[in-house]
Formats: sequence, C-alpha cells, structure tokens
Amino acid sequence: MGKGKKTKKKQVDAAELTGKAKRKAERKKAEAAAARRDDAVEARSWSDVLRAEPGVSLAELDPRSTPGFDGKKKDAEEVMAELQARLTDLQERLFAESRGGGERSVLLVIQGMDTAGKGGVMRHVVGAVDPQGVKITAFKAPSAEERRHPFLWRIRKALPGPGMIGVFDRSHYEDVLIVRVHDLVPRAQWSRRYAQINRFEEEVVDTGTTVVKVMLHISSDEQKERLGERLDRGDKHWKFNPGDIDERGHWAEYMEAYEAALEKCSTGVAPWHVVPADRKWYARLAVTNLLLEALEGMDPQWPEADFDVEEQKERLARTP
Amino acid sequence: MGKGKKTKKKQVDAAELTGKAKRKAERKKAEAAAARRDDAVEARSWSDVLRAEPGVSLAELDPRSTPGFDGKKKDAEEVMAELQARLTDLQERLFAESRGGGERSVLLVIQGMDTAGKGGVMRHVVGAVDPQGVKITAFKAPSAEERRHPFLWRIRKALPGPGMIGVFDRSHYEDVLIVRVHDLVPRAQWSRRYAQINRFEEEVVDTGTTVVKVMLHISSDEQKERLGERLDRGDKHWKFNPGDIDERGHWAEYMEAYEAALEKCSTGVAPWHVVPADRKWYARLAVTNLLLEALEGMDPQWPEADFDVEEQKERLARTP
Repeated sequence: MGKGKKTKKKQVDAAELTGKAKRKAERKKAEAAAARRDDAVEARSWSDVLRAEPGVSLAELDPRSTPGFDGKKKDAEEVMAELQARLTDLQERLFAESRGGGERSVLLVIQGMDTAGKGGVMRHVVGAVDPQGVKITAFKAPSAEERRHPFLWRIRKALPGPGMIGVFDRSHYEDVLIVRVHDLVPRAQWSRRYAQINRFEEEVVDTGTTVVKVMLHISSDEQKERLGERLDRGDKHWKFNPGDIDERGHWAEYMEAYEAALEKCSTGVAPWHVVPADRKWYARLAVTNLLLEALEGMDPQWPEADFDVEEQKERLARTP
Repeated sequence: MGKGKKTKKKQVDAAELTGKAKRKAERKKAEAAAARRDDAVEARSWSDVLRAEPGVSLAELDPRSTPGFDGKKKDAEEVMAELQARLTDLQERLFAESRGGGERSVLLVIQGMDTAGKGGVMRHVVGAVDPQGVKITAFKAPSAEERRHPFLWRIRKALPGPGMIGVFDRSHYEDVLIVRVHDLVPRAQWSRRYAQINRFEEEVVDTGTTVVKVMLHISSDEQKERLGERLDRGDKHWKFNPGDIDERGHWAEYMEAYEAALEKCSTGVAPWHVVPADRKWYARLAVTNLLLEALEGMDPQWPEADFDVEEQKERLARTP
C-alpha cells in the first residue's frame, strides 16, 4: 500500500497532491468512522453473538471483551438514546396489545456474581422504559414460607402478566447456583432441577412469554476492585456484606455451577446469553439490544379499536 | 420610568449613552432572567402552595394556572434534570436506609379525571427514579375477590415496604369518587368511608410512611381535547373507552365528589394537593417537587456500616 502511494506521487504536482491527499485522507477518515458506526450497530444479531452454546467455557470468554460491538464507550453512549427510544416504543405497543386482548409478555432474567452489575442493568436498561409496563422482582434467600413450597412456587407468582416486561434480579437459577455450591439441598434434589427448569420455561414460553436470559460475566479481579470501592465509599457500605468475601472463596465452584446451568438450560425456546460485564457500558448496551431484539421479534401492534371511531367522535362533539 | 430615562439622556453624550444604555439594558435583562429563574424555583414550598385548604373550590382553581412557578415550559424543562437528579439521590438514600434497618417509605397517591395525566406522571416523574425502589399499583375496578373484602383490603396489600416509594395510580379514593357518583354502594356506606380513610392514613403515617396525595386538576374543555386526540390517532385508540364519554356527563358530580374528598381528607398528617394539570409540563414539575420536598423532609441517611470496614478491606486484600 505504501508502495502504490509512492508511484502515484510521482505523477502529480506536489502542491496539488497535498490538497488531494488531504481531501482523500479526510474522506477516508469520515468513511471509516461511518463504517465503524455501522459495524458497531449492525453486527449479527446480539442474541446470536452472545448465546451460550453447548460446551460453553466461561474461562474462555473474556469479561473485558465487547462481542458484537466494534466501538468504544463513547460510541455506545451515542447509540443508547436511540435504542432506548425504540425499546420504549415497542414496550408501549406490547402493553397496548394486551389491552386489546393480547396475552404476550417478556421475561428478562438477570444472573451474575455479586457486583456483576445487576443493579445497574435495572437502573439504566430497565429504568429507561415506562415503569407502568415493568415488574421487577428481586429474589433473595427464600423466606420460611417459600421454603415450604417447591422452588418454582415463588417464581410462578412473579411471572409477568399480559403486556408486561417482567424482570428477575436473580431467579430460579439460584436454586442450581448457590444451592449447588453450598449443597443447601441434597445433590439428588438440585441435580433434578435442571430438567424441571427446562420444563417450566417451556411452559412459560408456550403461554406467550418471550424469555431472555442473561448472565453478566465478570472477572474475579473486577469483582475485587468493585468490592474494594464499596468498602472505600461511605455511600456504598450498605451494598457490602462480609459474606460477599466468603463467597469469593468459592469462585471456581460458582463458575462450574454457572457452566452447568448454561449447558443444561440454554434451550431453543429459552437460550442463555453470556454478556461480558467487566465494562459496565458494554453490558448495558448488550442487554438493551437483547431486550430490543426480543421485542422486535414479537413485533407487537397497536390494537384495533373495538368501537366505531367516527361514532365516538360525534358523541364527544355533542358533549358540553 | 420613561421620564427618568429622558432626563438622564440630556446629561450625557449621545454616542456614549448608546453604549451605556445598551450595556445597562443587557445587564438588566440578565438580572431579570436570573431573578425569574430564582423566583421560579425558590417560591414558598410547593406543598404550601398547592395544599387543599378547608372550603376548597375546584371551580376557583384555574387548571391552566402554574402556582408556585413563575416560568414557562422551557424554564421548567431546564430545572427538571436537576430536580430528577436530587430525587434519584434521595430515593437511593431512602432505599439504603432500609437496608440498615430503617422502616420509612413514601406513598404517592395520584388521582384525577380520565386524561388528567396520571400515566404521564408515572412515566415522566416516577420513571425518572431507579425502578428498583418504586412500586406502582394501578387500581382498576375491584375484582370479585376484592369486592368480597372491605374496600381498604386491596389498598393495604399494595402499601410500600421499607425504603420504597409506593405509587398509587388511582386509589382508595375511588371508593368515595366513582362509587359516590354512581352510588355503587349505598350512601350510608360510602359516607362512612371518609373517616375510615382518615384513620387508615393516620395509621399508615404512624408506621413510617410519608403520604403525598395529588389530585391532577384538568378542565372539562381540556379533557374533551385530549379524548379527541385519542380518537384521532390510531396509536391512541387503545387508551380510549366509550365509557369515558358517559363519565363526562357526570363532570359536575365528580367535581363535587372530589371537593368532598379534598375537604374531608386533607388532614394534617396526609394533606391533599390540587395540581393544575391542563399544562402537562407544569403538572409534572409540581409532582416532582412535591415528591422531592417529601423526601427532603425525611432527610434519609446512608446507614452506618455494621461491620469493621478496615478489617473487611484486609480480608478482601488477602483474597486471590
């Protein structure tokens, strides 16, 4: 390439070249920027790029990578506003559809180690849509009553109604994650749960709910830094629990439990997505896109009026 | 004033005056703009300005007025971002406080005629804070099960937990509004409810919930226009119900029922606020400020760490 440029140089006047070369360089730069923007936005579908495939290995997925997005933090921030506007529009359509008798809904399941950014996703991704159409459920350690029921009992109660986007901050997967790592129930019991979860999710999908499952994948180093920040800042102490450090001691077992869940429960009807999450901006961009793609796939429509519009206009006109 | 200017003119050189006068005019303009901004923001408390006082008359409260705010739509938009940032900060503090054992919460009750802008308040005011700290309940016509219980039964179930901002889109007040207008229960029954509501709200306040009650006050003309828009636009048909026009026929009775509720239930512990709502931007600004004042009055604090911070930092440092 350097060579070709040199050959051309000889054929033209030096001053002219300077002008031409400058313009060409500027044009190329602009084209490259445009291409970068396009590439960044129009990759393969985010779901394809991030889906957990059989044999998934978390160790091989770099938590600092940004698959499907070629841009930087600034580029992500620039596209977010438009993505959120599209998300808001589709959410309203889904909600409207249910008022016209539609029964479809969305369920976004967010899992991840402590500090992986679940709260940030709630705040910045879910928080961007109309709160009237969203139902967030944060699953903590089960209560005494919940423990008296099968593990899916409290999950069923939290499923989104027609037109809603349900969001699970942790979920039934804790019953094969923390429960498995600490053997909170006998192995024979938790090992049956993968199949129970698959049957349950199939049933949920069959009743009209599109399920989007996301694991926020951070590195142990990043978690150490984020826990350190929580300890450094007085306004973050409330987010810290000494037990978080104990859990770090089980990192490898958690990764193994996550891999088992991804492997056994990334099904055709309800696939898992692994979202690298060491860069918060990327994780939020990716989850926004996954949610957006799910809604675009559903293509919800404004319902037809179930009344005579002209007649109602006349009735309204006659009121004082 | 015009006269004073003329007197001055004679004393100075014409060219100099032009420069001086220009600078003076510019300075005055800037000062006026700053004063207008200050006036607009630092009025009496919004709660004082908007509180429903004994003998409240809705007919005398102009739905297009903007009490407590001297600015225009543009001015309101300029201050909103800062108000929302303060609201978000206070909401997080309230939430954090509950993690440290605090039991306080907020309940925002939004009432208003059809099209008064309840949905817009949910979307633009409530939607500005972290959805994890918000619980919206939209009260529709009671279900068969709800009708078998006292009218406050379903209301109690929807009260916000510690640290939460609960939001009622319609509320127990419907039981003295639509129920009264249409005599859905005997008069003897609904007429007892005002006192029941007052006792209930006192109890809610006693358990640590700050109650902010807002009636969005629109004019019948504005409602007619907004219903017309819903009929004109295909993407708004789902929000329209022919029954909305029937209800317009009872406008005067609704105003009477609202006045009775404001009169009897604007108590010291849980006052009502009437927010003029023909201008959507004003209503949103006013509700944001009412919510903000409530939270500022509570002054929630980051909880103290219930662990030894330095000890935990050392533990964290020792992890791999």
